[in-house]
This record gives sequence, structure tokens and C-alpha cells, in this order.
Amino acid sequence: MSRTTPADTPLGDDFHVYDTTLRDGAQREGISYSVTDKLAVARLLDSVGVGFIEGGWPGAMPKDTEFFARAAAGELNLRHAALVAFGSTRRPGLRPDEDPQVRALVDSQAPVITLVAKADRRHIERALRTGMSEAVAMVGETVAFLVGQGRRVFLDAEHFFDGYAYDPECALRVLSAGVDAGADVVVLCDTNGGQLPLQLAETVQDVVSRTGFRVGIHCQDDTACAVANTVAAVQAGATHVQCTANGYGERTGNADLFSVVGNLVTKLDMPVLPTEALSELTRVSHALAEIANLAPDTHQAYVGTSAFAHKAGLHASAIKVDPELYNHIDPVTVGNGQRVLVTEMAGRASLELKAREFGLDLTGRPETVNSAVRRVKELEARGWSFEAADASLELLLRREASDVDGAEPLPEPPFQLESYRVVLDHRGEDDVVSEATVKVHVAGERVIATAEGNGPVHALDAALRKALSPHLPWLSDVELVDYKVRILTDQHGTDAVTRVLVESRDGKREWTTVGVHGNIVEASWLALCDALVHKAMTQRALTW
Amino acid sequence: MSRTTPADTPLGDDFHVYDTTLRDGAQREGISYSVTDKLAVARLLDSVGVGFIEGGWPGAMPKDTEFFARAAAGELNLRHAALVAFGSTRRPGLRPDEDPQVRALVDSQAPVITLVAKADRRHIERALRTGMSEAVAMVGETVAFLVGQGRRVFLDAEHFFDGYAYDPECALRVLSAGVDAGADVVVLCDTNGGQLPLQLAETVQDVVSRTGFRVGIHCQDDTACAVANTVAAVQAGATHVQCTANGYGERTGNADLFSVVGNLVTKLDMPVLPTEALSELTRVSHALAEIANLAPDTHQAYVGTSAFAHKAGLHASAIKVDPELYNHIDPVTVGNGQRVLVTEMAGRASLELKAREFGLDLTGRPETVNSAVRRVKELEARGWSFEAADASLELLLRREASDVDGAEPLPEPPFQLESYRVVLDHRGEDDVVSEATVKVHVAGERVIATAEGNGPVHALDAALRKALSPHLPWLSDVELVDYKVRILTDQHGTDAVTRVLVESRDGKREWTTVGVHGNIVEASWLALCDALVHKAMTQRALTW
Repeated sequence: MSRTTPADTPLGDDFHVYDTTLRDGAQREGISYSVTDKLAVARLLDSVGVGFIEGGWPGAMPKDTEFFARAAAGELNLRHAALVAFGSTRRPGLRPDEDPQVRALVDSQAPVITLVAKADRRHIERALRTGMSEAVAMVGETVAFLVGQGRRVFLDAEHFFDGYAYDPECALRVLSAGVDAGADVVVLCDTNGGQLPLQLAETVQDVVSRTGFRVGIHCQDDTACAVANTVAAVQAGATHVQCTANGYGERTGNADLFSVVGNLVTKLDMPVLPTEALSELTRVSHALAEIANLAPDTHQAYVGTSAFAHKAGLHASAIKVDPELYNHIDPVTVGNGQRVLVTEMAGRASLELKAREFGLDLTGRPETVNSAVRRVKELEARGWSFEAADASLELLLRREASDVDGAEPLPEPPFQLESYRVVLDHRGEDDVVSEATVKVHVAGERVIATAEGNGPVHALDAALRKALSPHLPWLSDVELVDYKVRILTDQHGTDAVTRVLVESRDGKREWTTVGVHGNIVEASWLALCDALVHKAMTQRALTW
Repeated sequence: MSRTTPADTPLGDDFHVYDTTLRDGAQREGISYSVTDKLAVARLLDSVGVGFIEGGWPGAMPKDTEFFARAAAGELNLRHAALVAFGSTRRPGLRPDEDPQVRALVDSQAPVITLVAKADRRHIERALRTGMSEAVAMVGETVAFLVGQGRRVFLDAEHFFDGYAYDPECALRVLSAGVDAGADVVVLCDTNGGQLPLQLAETVQDVVSRTGFRVGIHCQDDTACAVANTVAAVQAGATHVQCTANGYGERTGNADLFSVVGNLVTKLDMPVLPTEALSELTRVSHALAEIANLAPDTHQAYVGTSAFAHKAGLHASAIKVDPELYNHIDPVTVGNGQRVLVTEMAGRASLELKAREFGLDLTGRPETVNSAVRRVKELEARGWSFEAADASLELLLRREASDVDGAEPLPEPPFQLESYRVVLDHRGEDDVVSEATVKVHVAGERVIATAEGNGPVHALDAALRKALSPHLPWLSDVELVDYKVRILTDQHGTDAVTRVLVESRDGKREWTTVGVHGNIVEASWLALCDALVHKAMTQRALTW
């Protein structure tokens, strides 16, 4: 059996970063991990030095049983973390060794077991339908049994805060039953998520000083305070934090691992993860979103792509001089980067900063910068917006750099459009057909292709792919992830203009492009083309 | 000039719920409000009883200048809120009345002005490039000038917490300069968003006890603690909270108005909004997301569609019996619903209320209400949303009332579609043609008409008008004001679905309709048709 304490982490067993993405996080509406997904999630979490990874509830969930079997069979080699199985105390009236769910915990071979027990007398009486003495016996006997099997045991005290407010002695009896039987940590759970930080910190301090137990914290986000509550609990004496990646979880979710760790490390100077892992947080957060099949939260603290993005144009030049005046931390610490959003007030300073982000050094090239500023302003006056379309902006800057001083010539685009035609036919309710024909020049050939789609843009995308795929094999990697449309009315003259944002992905990265035109299909076409050209640009080895 | 204190709110001027969605919220990446959008946002915020609405920065942003002009011209009649203009203190070396930005504040005619001033000595020296005495003079003179102009003035102390930690005396001098000159509230701003609740509460308490000033709080979410920090500040003595709807704002955003209010009302028993407004919070939050053209956050505290959704299978029956054991509040309080129980009751009640708004009394007609609830749920499952499309909802309710109990027969629609065809031709850059042909039956005739337009929807609208105008003269009054498109991706099965909102106007009123389809043109067609049918319905005198 493998380790029961974190390995190669600065604080060792003194402070527990405990992740429950694979169990509590999986309760989030829309998440459905395969066993392979779960193994990949565990490896990523281990790579940033999390101390404990709760893999699931063996016995209750067949996938979780399989996960632990495959982990034990050698598919999961953790460098830092100890693997944890989650389960319930024995049912009322059974011996622990008779209860199949308790047996499943033993069979999981997980070295650490987290047992959940109700700590609110109302739940014990109304949901469990038993009395305090049986509830306490369930905790004590199950903990003792598992400790006897050589496991390290943590106790999740469910509904602790509500229970403590309602009947503190009963709540404390549940904790004592666990500790007396050998549980190492009692985890105070705000299961309904109704706590606020000042009260929660008081309760934690109270429990720590009254019992002397090692206390952990588990918060749900129903008051939008899960991260704050978790950090406040640590300041009040908790030394074990239960979190989920990106705050995934039931209802409003759990405390976000990345925000909690970010706060503990950068605000409270607690080195809770290995130093070299910190700069991986942004990448790992996005990779975990990918596995959950959810778009990363662009506005997430520390790791969101907007977390250090500054829009206010008037500050841009000040930010360039003195970034630490405008960011609460150096974004590089957590593997994130500062972004300057190019808005209507874009100036030379912000474009230079942007270019640097793209690896394009424009210092000492004022002609190019001036020309790029003019071009951006001209396009923005016509409704373009590069704020959320870095890939289009990068192409624009590289084109300007190439045109104006020729320092970095841009290769020819991979194809040339001759024309397209889209036909939409509504012949009756639920009988609407979209068909597109494109004529393009690619690899020296003229190709004509026709395809159908759900709507005009889908048909056009399908026809374009049909025409280009035989010549550009990398096209099959590119997937259209998201498509946003904004109609700009009163702000740009009398004719309405349509702005389309296209988000693409190729397994390695995501990029966003923009197109603007009076015609929504043409606007989409422009954004689609930029997406493919940007992909091509990153594939310089290709024959185009 | 209109009011300077909140009206018809339980706490009156004693506690300020101050919204800055239209100024600080608009800094969020991707948000770009039109002036019409801004007016709609202000009306929605006022409808839930917010005390102050910061409309923008007149003088700095042309759209904001126009917003205040249109508000002053009578387009914005606020029932609860006082309107606020945001601006900067005079520039170094100028007199307030010489500074065009200060003059723009006066010209905006806003009764309340919030002035921003730097409260961190490093910012004063490094970004403002001036000294403390000039910085203090800038605050005092500008406040005094505006108070002299009859305005109520609040002072936003930018970077206050960092400044107070670095040099508390300087930070306090900035506050005193404002209060001495007549500012009513000094707002401590965590501009970089780096604070945690326990420290922030200490600082707030410290400032309140040292100065006796009326203190407000403005938090950014960079540590994922903006809501917690705001609530902690109130517990420490702040009586003015600055928030944005749905937490929109620069970088990671601001403190979310709905979570802050939810916490103050349900956790701290502070009636900060009119009681009847609370049950509107969910609807208003979603409508504001719609106007910002952002998907509502499904996991948002209090108002998210998942906020009371219970996935944990094992709890389902217990939740049914004893919901208060599993929810931190009764979701109905904030107009939300628990999802496992399917919110039949809430659905019925709100549809009845909506019907009454339309002048349609459904009391005593349970069959019609049930059938309408079923129809709405069925459409919502397919991606429809009536939150921001009252006219479509009214048509739906009238159709149900007419079909089910025939009490209020709805006249036949003014026309019947046989088919349409749209052709888009791209023959070269700037040579994109859209042409639409419609075949319709109107006034007993079959009419075929073809027209061109900027894009497919414009062409279709033009062809339809060409076909119908000779028979429906009132059509020429109807103008398409706004057109919004949202692509709904992963939430409704594999095929992406497009939702279109169309806003129409006829000189007397504005109305919004919705259409949903896999094909954007068909979705637009459905919304266009509803818009014309709704207009026809209000023209009962006509021959149809």
C-alpha cells in the first residue's frame, strides 16, 4: 500500500491541500468523468503537488470502484499525493465488517479513507432516522475498524456549521467519536454553503480551542464565499483544506483549489505547494476544464485568461511603466500573463505590449507601431473589436510588421477564395435547408465543393473543409469550439453591422478570431478564415 | 434635478446599495453596451430597488455623455434609485471649473457625483506624478466645487487598502480632504482586488473608529473574495456597498450585486432592498446577462439556474421531504427554484403574474395556466428564453388562453408564409449580395416578393415588407431597433441552437420577441414574425 502523507511538498504533513474534484467536483451539473478521465485528472493534480487526491466513492459508484482497481494495478503513480477513498460510516444496526460499503473501502486498497458522518442532530434524527448514541457508535466503530485495517482516516463532519449552531454538544460528540477511535483530522463541512467568513472563522477557532483536534475545512459556494471561508478557516487554525479544481461541485460549486492555493501562497506566505508547481497552475486549471469538457472560466481568480487583463485605456501607459501598481500579484507566479485589452482607446503603448505577448518585438520600429495603431483604430471605427480576439490581432500586427518594414515577412495564406454562394430554403415548418458552395484555390488547384449544414455558417464551414481537407491535412485537428454573434446597431452609423467571434481549438491550444461585416455570413467567413490562417501560421513546416 | 437619496426602500438613506454595472461593470472583457442597452439596464436595476445607479463617466466616454443627456431629457424615470455620474477630480494644476472633465460632470445633470481619487501615495507620486498636498487639494477643491453646484458627492478612494497598508496617514488625508469639503461617503476601494476578508474587516473597522466618516466599500474579485470582502466590510461598519450585476467588471470582476444582497438580506437580516423586489432578483439577473449578451452563470450564488439543483441521487428523496435541510435558504425568496422538485408552483405563479401584466386575467383558469406552463417548459428545454422577450410570451399566453378555454379568441395572424428562399453570393471583396424571396398569403391573395439586403435577415425583412405593405399599411410604422443573437452550444444536445431577440418600435412603444432554431435565419424569421403579429394584435381595428 502506498503513502499516507504528502511527499516532496514544502510543508509535508503539516498542512494538507486535499482535492476532491473527482468525488465532490464530479457532482457538478454537466460533468461526467470516464475512468480514463479520472486517472488523467489525478495525474494533473499530482503534478502540481496536491497532498491528497480523493478519487471517488468505491462501492457506491461502479466507475469509482474501477478507478481504484486500476490505480492499485499500477496505472496511477503519484509523486506527491496520497490517494484517498471516500465513503460513509456503517449503516445503523450493522457491524462495520458486515457493511458492504465499508468493505468496499477496504477493498479499494486506498491508503487513506475519508469517512462522512452527519454532525447536525436534525439530520441524524430526520434523514438518518436514528439517535445520537447510535450515530456516535457508527462513527467510532467504523473509524476503529478502518484504522485496524491499517488505513489513515479523516472524518468529514457533514452539515457541521449548521449542526454546531443548533446543538454544539452533539456536533462535538460526533467529532470526538472519530478522534477517539483514531481519526487524524476532523473536517468541518459547510455542506449547505450558507456560511460567511467572520462567523465561520469564529466557529473554527472555537472548535480548535475547545477540542485541540486537528481541524480541516470543506466549503460550498452558496454565498459566493467558499474561497474566503476556506482561507478564513486556515487563519482560524485549520490545517487541512478540501477544494476542487476550478470550484467544480454541486449547485454553486466548492472552494476553488486554484484560488485557495493562490491566496494561501501569495497573501499568507504559506508555501502549501512545491514552488516549481505554482507556475503550472494556469495550465493545469485549463487542462482540467478541458477534461471536464467545460470552457475555462475566463474571469477566474489567478488562472483565468482575463484575470490580469486591463481594459481601461487610460491606464495602459501607466501599466507599462509600473505593472505592480495595477496587479495584486505578478501573474507569472501562477503561470498566467498580463494582457492588455485593445479597446477603442488603444494607443501605442498597449499595442506594443500586445505584440510582446505574441513574441513580436516592436521596440525601435515606430513606423510599424504607428501603422498598426491606425489600422486598429480604422477597423474599430467600423465595429471590429480585438479585445477578445487575440489571434486576429496577432495576424494584424504581423501583417503590419511584414508590410511596413518587412522585418518579419508573413507567409502567403494557405488558400485563396474565389467566391461562395449560400442558399437557404424554407419550404415548410421544420423543413429549412442550408447549402453552401465554395470555389477556392489551394495548393495550385482550383477546387469547388458543396455541402449542407444546420445553418448558413455551418454549411459554409463544411464546404470549406470539404474543399481544403485533401490539401491541408492539419485541418482535421481544428475544431470550432464556440461562435458568438453581436449585432452592433446604434453605435456605428445607420447600417447595422455584425461582429462574429470564433473560438477554435486543436487539442493543444485555443484561439479566438473576429470578423465584422454588414452581412452575418460574410462576418463569420472572415473570422473562420482568420482562424485557419492563424493555425497555418503556427504550422510553418507545412507546404503553403 | 431629481433625487439624491433612495426612495421607497426599507432603509432609505441609512444603507446604500450602489450599483456600478454601467461604469465599472462595462469594463468587463466582451461587454459593449449601447445607450439603449444602458437605459434598459438602469430600468431593471431600479425595478429591484437599488438605491444608486452609476450611469457612466460623462465627458470621458461619448456614449456615457449621451446616456446622461437622454436620461435628463426624460427617457429614464427612476422610482427608487438616484442617478450618479462618475468622474475624476480635477487634473493637477487646473481649477475645477476650468477642467473639462469636471465641467462634463456638472453638465450631465446627475444629482449625485462619485469622484475617484487616488489614496495610495505611490500612485499619487508614480502615476499622477504629483505630491500629497496637490493631491489633497485636487480632492478638496473638486468636491467643494461640485457641492457648490448643488450635487451630493461620494468619494471613491482608489487603491485605498494598499495605500493604507503602505502609508495610513496619507490615505486618511485623502479621505479627510473629501469629507471636509462636503463629501457624504468615502468609499474604500480594493482596486487591485488583493484583499482577504479578515484583514479587510480590520482595516474598515479601524478607519470607521479613527475618523467617524460614513464609509463605503468597493471590491474587485482578484482573490475570489469580492462578495465576502463586501459583506465583511458591512459587518465592520460600512453602510454603502458598490456592486455590479452578476459581478461584471474588469479582470476577475467586481462584487456581485445579487450575492451581496442575498447575503445581507438572508444571512444578516438587513432589509437592503424592498421586500417585493427580492423575488425578482433571479429574473433581473438573467435579463441583465441577456442585455450584456453574456450567458447567465448557471452556478452563480442565489440566482444561478444550478444554485438549488441537487444532483446527488442519494439525497433526492430526503430533499423532497425536508428541503430546508439541504438548501441554505428557500430559493423562492430570491425568485429561484429548487430543481429536483421542478418548480411547478413558481412557474404557475409567475406566469399568472406575467399574464396580469399583459392585461390577461388567468385567475380561475387553471387549465390554461397548466397548459401554458407546459408549453413554456417545453420551449425552454429547446433553448427558448422568454425572460427578455415579453411580446413573444404575451402571444404564447394569449394563444394558450384562446386554445384551451377559448375565453379570449386571438384573431388570425395577418399573413401566412408559404416559403422563403435566401441566396447569398460572395463574388469578391466588398461584393457580397443577399437576396430573399418570400411567398406569402395576405388579405386573401398569394404574393411573391424579392428584395436585397445587407445580410440574409435584412433581405428577408425587406422582402416580407415588400409583400405585405400594400395590404398592411401600419407596417411602415414598425422599425427594427435591435437584433441580438446568442449561440447556445453544449447545453441543448449535440446540435448548436441559435436564439435571436428582435426589438421593435412603432413610435409609441417598444417590444421584444424571440425565435430559436438550429438555423440562424429561421430563428430570426420566427422572431420577426412574432414582432409583426404582436403589432397586429395591438391594432385590433384593422381588417385581419
